[in-house]
Amino acid sequence: MRKTSLDTVLRVKCKHRVGQLASLATAIAEEGGLLGDITTLRSLDSDTLREVTVETMDEGQRDRVIEAVRKVDGVEILDTIDRVFDLHKGGKLHMTSRIELRHQRDLRYIYTPGVARVARAIEREPERARHLTGIGNSVGIFTNGTRVLGLGNVGPLASLPVMEGKAVLYDKFVGISASPILVDTLDPKEFVETVLRLSLTFGGIHLEDIRIPDCYRIEEELIERLEKPVMHDDQHGTATVALAAVLNACKMTGVSLEKARVGQIGLGAAGSAIARLMMAHGARDVLVTDRSEEAMNWLKGLGAHPVDLPTLMREADIVIAATGKPGLIDPKWIRPGQVIFPLSNPDPEIEPTDAMAAGAAFCSDGRSINNALAFPGLFRGALAVESRAITPEMRIAAARAIASCAEQGEVVPSPLLPHVHEAVCEAVVEAARAQGLEGTARLTLRKPS
Amino acid sequence: MRKTSLDTVLRVKCKHRVGQLASLATAIAEEGGLLGDITTLRSLDSDTLREVTVETMDEGQRDRVIEAVRKVDGVEILDTIDRVFDLHKGGKLHMTSRIELRHQRDLRYIYTPGVARVARAIEREPERARHLTGIGNSVGIFTNGTRVLGLGNVGPLASLPVMEGKAVLYDKFVGISASPILVDTLDPKEFVETVLRLSLTFGGIHLEDIRIPDCYRIEEELIERLEKPVMHDDQHGTATVALAAVLNACKMTGVSLEKARVGQIGLGAAGSAIARLMMAHGARDVLVTDRSEEAMNWLKGLGAHPVDLPTLMREADIVIAATGKPGLIDPKWIRPGQVIFPLSNPDPEIEPTDAMAAGAAFCSDGRSINNALAFPGLFRGALAVESRAITPEMRIAAARAIASCAEQGEVVPSPLLPHVHEAVCEAVVEAARAQGLEGTARLTLRKPS
Repeated sequence: MRKTSLDTVLRVKCKHRVGQLASLATAIAEEGGLLGDITTLRSLDSDTLREVTVETMDEGQRDRVIEAVRKVDGVEILDTIDRVFDLHKGGKLHMTSRIELRHQRDLRYIYTPGVARVARAIEREPERARHLTGIGNSVGIFTNGTRVLGLGNVGPLASLPVMEGKAVLYDKFVGISASPILVDTLDPKEFVETVLRLSLTFGGIHLEDIRIPDCYRIEEELIERLEKPVMHDDQHGTATVALAAVLNACKMTGVSLEKARVGQIGLGAAGSAIARLMMAHGARDVLVTDRSEEAMNWLKGLGAHPVDLPTLMREADIVIAATGKPGLIDPKWIRPGQVIFPLSNPDPEIEPTDAMAAGAAFCSDGRSINNALAFPGLFRGALAVESRAITPEMRIAAARAIASCAEQGEVVPSPLLPHVHEAVCEAVVEAARAQGLEGTARLTLRKPS
Repeated sequence: MRKTSLDTVLRVKCKHRVGQLASLATAIAEEGGLLGDITTLRSLDSDTLREVTVETMDEGQRDRVIEAVRKVDGVEILDTIDRVFDLHKGGKLHMTSRIELRHQRDLRYIYTPGVARVARAIEREPERARHLTGIGNSVGIFTNGTRVLGLGNVGPLASLPVMEGKAVLYDKFVGISASPILVDTLDPKEFVETVLRLSLTFGGIHLEDIRIPDCYRIEEELIERLEKPVMHDDQHGTATVALAAVLNACKMTGVSLEKARVGQIGLGAAGSAIARLMMAHGARDVLVTDRSEEAMNWLKGLGAHPVDLPTLMREADIVIAATGKPGLIDPKWIRPGQVIFPLSNPDPEIEPTDAMAAGAAFCSDGRSINNALAFPGLFRGALAVESRAITPEMRIAAARAIASCAEQGEVVPSPLLPHVHEAVCEAVVEAARAQGLEGTARLTLRKPS
């Protein structure tokens, strides 16, 4: 039932009689559908109008559930609503005015002629734009749609709902104004050039869903050329949350992260960033394995130890897998007492129940490792202190803050808890200050013509 | 007093006694300041806390007013607030979520895993992005900041407050989600390339504050390459509102626009667009004059008649000036019965009182010719019918709608009246339908790799 993710609302008219809902629920259950909320809309003379939410694995099962409900005596389906598509109608964002326009005077203040004085002030002192415009609280979410979720290269347009989702999280979690920017190019050089040309528009640059190895080169070049926070979330957001989870798993199991040998299986964007953050955190020994020689050599150059998979499984105390290959880890390889994070979604490298049965001290899959725990607070903190960068130290501070917010028995908290993002932001601010990064950001400017 | 545009709020403590406000008002008046709102904040035992708004021509006069108020017996200035800068703090926009996030379920619908189904749906049928994302209601406001208001080439960063102002008007007047995009290049080819690379992000492309002649080339090329509405507002927004004003002035004075000879002085972005729109509207004869030979020849090629200024003033029944040259028109040149629009801001080519004294039938300067009357409804209408273009016919329809909303004695209505934008939108929709443009927009897509 891992892939359960399709919520359908059935708007139904049910006869007003004992057992009617029971027979409806039974029909749904017989097709394997999960019954969710039931909401009464209206009571009629002999019927009740209700909305019944059903969770199914896919469209096929949904259709079978609908068919089954249709056959229930006393139930009439009036409408079926796909909740996800319903919520996406018209998009998830709106660029909203922070100013009320009531009088002619208001127009004169925020538009001509008043605005000319503000433009002049910024022309004279460019850094004032940070406070006289939205720049100081804004992030551009740039993608070319070449590696979207588990879907691959769907192109920038099809990636837009994902980018809108990220912007929703920025707004709701930390009040950042984030704009999706679709860059229609497959050439990393053109991508960099485009972001540079637009960079004045935003206080921070969030890179998203860009395929490897382009994402490395793009991020590196932008960090070098811009004096404002740049971060590829698929690398560093994931690594930050993974580190948080590892910190808590170590605490739960009594494993010492400092003394432990960490093994990273899979060196894609997420995996390589996890290995790098583990090293930055001071892990004594980081073993890595991947089918790509190039990735192995890169990580070796950074201080990791390339090994083969069986060696890694045998030697590592903490194993993190991000390979996209379900079932890659044979339960026979599990060493008693190991901490295992098979992160691939929706199907992990090993089922946690199997890993635990094989003697693992702890195993949790990728469902709780949600980037939404990290990127909002990371950017909010970096913007708050006007740091020119988001450093590994800031990410480690964020990971610790996330870890500290988890409830007993959880490796990470829910991203819906506001205090999590506040804690991340505060930790990031403190780390940036400790590194002397406060006030180092610059709104890079074009040379005058 | 033309340049009066600096509003300062004085927060003052006034003795609670008869004549205290009168002496305050007198002090302000003696320095030539205009007294605006007076708001009582709090009554104390022997004093009252008040906010007093004073309008001055410039900072110098403001400082003199403040000094004079300081000397008034019984008045203490606690604070002085620059209303314009105050309103701009933190910027004028925020990218806001249209979705509530309360439960884990909400996250799963708008982010992973739910959003993957929406991305897939758009990958299969790209045009669905128009309804499953914000694209169908979005406009990108692109500028390189090379010709901002009357300020000239202040660069993209200093132009941001102006772009934010435009986006505020889009949101407040027609509910469009508009994003300022600063393009940091002086090269029109690079500008076009950048907009093309980003064009998937937006339903419409609004070009703003780009110098001539680059603005012509940029607009032309983008219109050719994109199948979505593209409009340079400094040209066509201004021309649309100017046409509306001319229509009403003709009605007031009994001049027949069809039979009249129209003279356009100044062929910059606004002037050339006005001349072209007049021709598109069917003006019999359009005389043009400009110091640029190139501009004259261009308009000649489009059917206008290049003449010198005295000839134009002698022969035209309707004269429109957009030159940026205060006092260019000598009152001696005015022909009795002429309709005159000296549009340059803040100082017109001739003072309306002087023109009327010299025998003009009608004269109005550029203060009421506000682009905000046109661009919101033009884009809203074009997006509403999914038109691939904003044509001269649509602009003429918009001008007629604007004109029809003006009150008795006005040439154009206030842009703060919501029904104006509704009327423009409806007229634009109708005109687009009449031209067979409904449903012709396309979300241009990258070729698959």
